[in-house]
Amino acid sequence: MKNAFNTIGLIGKYGAPEVADTVQTLAELLQQRQCDVRIEMSTEKTLSSRAFTSSSLDEIGRECDLTIIIGGDGTLLAVARTLVDYDIPILGINLGRLGFLVDISPSEMAVRVNEILDGQYEEEHRILLNAIVDHKNTPPSESDAFNDVVIHKWEVARMIETETYVNGHFLNTMRSDGLIISTPTGSTAYALSAGGPIIDPAMDAILIVPTCPHSMSYRPLVVDGNSTIEVFVKENMHSHAQVTCDGQINLGLVSGDRIKIRKKDQVVRIIHPKNHNHYEILRAKMHWGEHS
Amino acid sequence: MKNAFNTIGLIGKYGAPEVADTVQTLAELLQQRQCDVRIEMSTEKTLSSRAFTSSSLDEIGRECDLTIIIGGDGTLLAVARTLVDYDIPILGINLGRLGFLVDISPSEMAVRVNEILDGQYEEEHRILLNAIVDHKNTPPSESDAFNDVVIHKWEVARMIETETYVNGHFLNTMRSDGLIISTPTGSTAYALSAGGPIIDPAMDAILIVPTCPHSMSYRPLVVDGNSTIEVFVKENMHSHAQVTCDGQINLGLVSGDRIKIRKKDQVVRIIHPKNHNHYEILRAKMHWGEHS
Amino acid sequence: MKNAFNTIGLIGKYGAPEVADTVQTLAELLQQRQCDVRIEMSTEKTLSSRAFTSSSLDEIGRECDLTIIIGGDGTLLAVARTLVDYDIPILGINLGRLGFLVDISPSEMAVRVNEILDGQYEEEHRILLNAIVDHKNTPPSESDAFNDVVIHKWEVARMIETETYVNGHFLNTMRSDGLIISTPTGSTAYALSAGGPIIDPAMDAILIVPTCPHSMSYRPLVVDGNSTIEVFVKENMHSHAQVTCDGQINLGLVSGDRIKIRKKDQVVRIIHPKNHNHYEILRAKMHWGEHS
Amino acid sequence: MKNAFNTIGLIGKYGAPEVADTVQTLAELLQQRQCDVRIEMSTEKTLSSRAFTSSSLDEIGRECDLTIIIGGDGTLLAVARTLVDYDIPILGINLGRLGFLVDISPSEMAVRVNEILDGQYEEEHRILLNAIVDHKNTPPSESDAFNDVVIHKWEVARMIETETYVNGHFLNTMRSDGLIISTPTGSTAYALSAGGPIIDPAMDAILIVPTCPHSMSYRPLVVDGNSTIEVFVKENMHSHAQVTCDGQINLGLVSGDRIKIRKKDQVVRIIHPKNHNHYEILRAKMHWGEHS
Repeated sequence: MKNAFNTIGLIGKYGAPEVADTVQTLAELLQQRQCDVRIEMSTEKTLSSRAFTSSSLDEIGRECDLTIIIGGDGTLLAVARTLVDYDIPILGINLGRLGFLVDISPSEMAVRVNEILDGQYEEEHRILLNAIVDHKNTPPSESDAFNDVVIHKWEVARMIETETYVNGHFLNTMRSDGLIISTPTGSTAYALSAGGPIIDPAMDAILIVPTCPHSMSYRPLVVDGNSTIEVFVKENMHSHAQVTCDGQINLGLVSGDRIKIRKKDQVVRIIHPKNHNHYEILRAKMHWGEHS
Repeated sequence: MKNAFNTIGLIGKYGAPEVADTVQTLAELLQQRQCDVRIEMSTEKTLSSRAFTSSSLDEIGRECDLTIIIGGDGTLLAVARTLVDYDIPILGINLGRLGFLVDISPSEMAVRVNEILDGQYEEEHRILLNAIVDHKNTPPSESDAFNDVVIHKWEVARMIETETYVNGHFLNTMRSDGLIISTPTGSTAYALSAGGPIIDPAMDAILIVPTCPHSMSYRPLVVDGNSTIEVFVKENMHSHAQVTCDGQINLGLVSGDRIKIRKKDQVVRIIHPKNHNHYEILRAKMHWGEHS
Repeated sequence: MKNAFNTIGLIGKYGAPEVADTVQTLAELLQQRQCDVRIEMSTEKTLSSRAFTSSSLDEIGRECDLTIIIGGDGTLLAVARTLVDYDIPILGINLGRLGFLVDISPSEMAVRVNEILDGQYEEEHRILLNAIVDHKNTPPSESDAFNDVVIHKWEVARMIETETYVNGHFLNTMRSDGLIISTPTGSTAYALSAGGPIIDPAMDAILIVPTCPHSMSYRPLVVDGNSTIEVFVKENMHSHAQVTCDGQINLGLVSGDRIKIRKKDQVVRIIHPKNHNHYEILRAKMHWGEHS
Repeated sequence: MKNAFNTIGLIGKYGAPEVADTVQTLAELLQQRQCDVRIEMSTEKTLSSRAFTSSSLDEIGRECDLTIIIGGDGTLLAVARTLVDYDIPILGINLGRLGFLVDISPSEMAVRVNEILDGQYEEEHRILLNAIVDHKNTPPSESDAFNDVVIHKWEVARMIETETYVNGHFLNTMRSDGLIISTPTGSTAYALSAGGPIIDPAMDAILIVPTCPHSMSYRPLVVDGNSTIEVFVKENMHSHAQVTCDGQINLGLVSGDRIKIRKKDQVVRIIHPKNHNHYEILRAKMHWGEHS
């Protein structure tokens, strides 16, 4: 019998000791299915067994046909950004707390993974953003973002002033604490806290949400996924700003710099169990129906 | 010399006496350009001159290759719904107050219309929704909507309870004053008052916004334009609800009825002057940049 | 031994069959404490025992020194409005679902009621509103409200236009679905759904919250509890409006009528167990701390 | 004839060259009215004339019976904080842009100031907050705030986690970008950008507004002005936070510190022309009634 996936990389949440048992159980299950198992180096070090091949993230990207993340949404975000160029599908096992992306619980792991190896799965594609900061005096810096690119004030109490362009057309000038440029995936993360809408994750759309804008007439804006967003942070002695991708990667920024954000050509390929229901996760995470 | 449009229907805002002069000026201008001008019946009656052909809306749809609306966004909404099956482009002249859709002012009318007849124009396509109410005991009722389909409480102080499905998948149960299902065009209308995002009008998307939901965890949701939205209004002795399209057309509704909303196959074709800038209108209407 | 309260009226939620057992248990407990127990007529009819005195609401107000409500917040709201002129304290037993006002659960009822009879209780005062509608052509109508006075559109899809005055000073003109004038108690009810703040229930303040205002610059407003709020609904052929108190009592309203809202001189006296903690209830009802 | 105020201090916006002319005109006007005029040192240096007495802020507080600010709301905020212990009334002249506090324009300055000297004025009292930061390892730091005390993340992309107590009662734990504790005066400043309500400036109330809370169920909260608010910033390696008063004064803060906020005993005394109308300013600043 042939499996749907044969060479499989396992990546655990960095620094989480409770991951080891789940990874070991999963690795043994995959070996029983005759899979070639590679375990990411730092994860492999946490295992009591030395029975599995240790690999770098790059080796996993190059040599595997499936990556399985054991951790939370944050772990999957980081891995997805790193492996996106390898075009490898990703499956997420959560560690007890349901995530939007890591939607298989440890207790159902064995059943679901066996089904997926049998070909019973769905593949979903999600967009990523790429942010380039053109600095006035230094070479550009760059990062990908799966959730969001956030331009925010930094080390300063005052609002920043931004000038935003969509596809080269001037959108607006605004004073605010910051500006979130989000994927549909990120619409349930920081953008939601700032009052943004929920966007169906399969959509090809980019969401622009101000945080604490000086006037309430500045509202969340949804534009086509093929749009180019450019943001200029106005120069003045009071303002400092920073660009952060997925709340994880900071790109330096000084007043007067320009940030350019576009969708990446590559998508993230997420694997779900058959009959995966995004709305079920949404209802659970948003506590819909529970409120009195 | 050949014009870009040759048989042109003019439709004035219903019951607005100040329309007559603008319509007459425009009709004369079009005749000077050798166009065949048809004036919608009730508009024609308001003119002092009897020099122009009076036509029904249907005749305009069938026989013209351009319709020009003189009025406000509401006038254009109503005409667009009526003529959508004729696949005829629509141009909007406002009556002194800028609209999102009627973006040519009377003072620039002559210059812009001449440019458009010369072929200097842009055509934009916008989606429409179709709402069918399946009544429990009577035949279904149906309407199109260019802005929004609104399910709202009616003649009652209590909230209504709705159950919503997207593409057959259960989304949620909610108590609220109502539910707005909006096109991108409608995102700057009633949906905005209810806290929805602004959606770029060219997007193929449907926006679902609750009004005064019982819990703040119910948020605006953006789904793909090809989605089917179904809403059930729960039966109980206290609740009454109604479906209204574009704030203009009421479809009867009683507790227990089902509303089904889909994008229409036909799009509305809007004509704009060359170099039309949607964001310029948005900035003006939202008063961006003016607030102190 | 002398009890803190000796003549006690019991009022069950109207039409709720599950109330009877709790009322009977409570009545027996009070009799064991030598209290004179009066049971509201329609509640008394639901009991299997005929051992208790049946009284009208007015008799309870006149003759008792404590009223105990068995039901939900809605039951307590209605009773508080009815009995406010009798200056009688009210205690609330919930029927399994925690309320903001009915904060004793059936399971702790015996312990808490005994403590309260022993004098271990706290008394909290809350303000009520009084709304008078001055009709253009008919005598004025009037009602009290413990949560809120809501002016809302009625039987119509279009927004209503209101003109609001505070202490005779013009506040604003607004187009919206409606206007909520709320007590601090009501700030966690309908006003919250409309985006209002939570107001500490002991405050002497009135909250004014628009529902779906035409412009987002219209925000919730908090004014002193001694303010007089007047609202005029603009006359026009499209708009219809209604005034509703506590979502329970409708005062007729036509375009052109004036609504005048003031705090009542009498307060509602709510009895709580010793060490009652309002924030604990707030956290539970708002699900604070539970969200992932 | 005796003036209502006789020794008057003038304070111009710091570093604003356009202030000098207005200050000079005003100083001459006051001298014609036989007032003893003191000009704040750094303001006096910008005048071309050396004819006026130069005073320190402290001397103005000690020796004058009225202070006149020429500048914006920010200038008045700073002066009000500095002079609050001197119990001296403050009048604000704006520099062309209407403020909530500086409500006399240069063009009406002569008329209004003469009226006020004639005793035609209103005095309004507004509360101030005092914030004390109890540091774990260093002596406490302290500041007053006329608008708001803001606890916000600093030099970090992640949310901060706060634990809030009101009058010693636990309110909630929350993850957010920050927390605004605002006076009624500050309710139209930063708190408004974060979604807070407008509070009538004469109220004795404190407003607590989270910025970008992790869950939308955390809402603005209004408590009595005599409340003590305590906020603890949770210790962890990722979070950094800062306390800022009126967007002008930073109090150092590290994870684990405690912030205690109370109303000051002294109020700010603001002088307005007779028939001053706060709602008129509010309508102008909020652009109510102008939106299309």
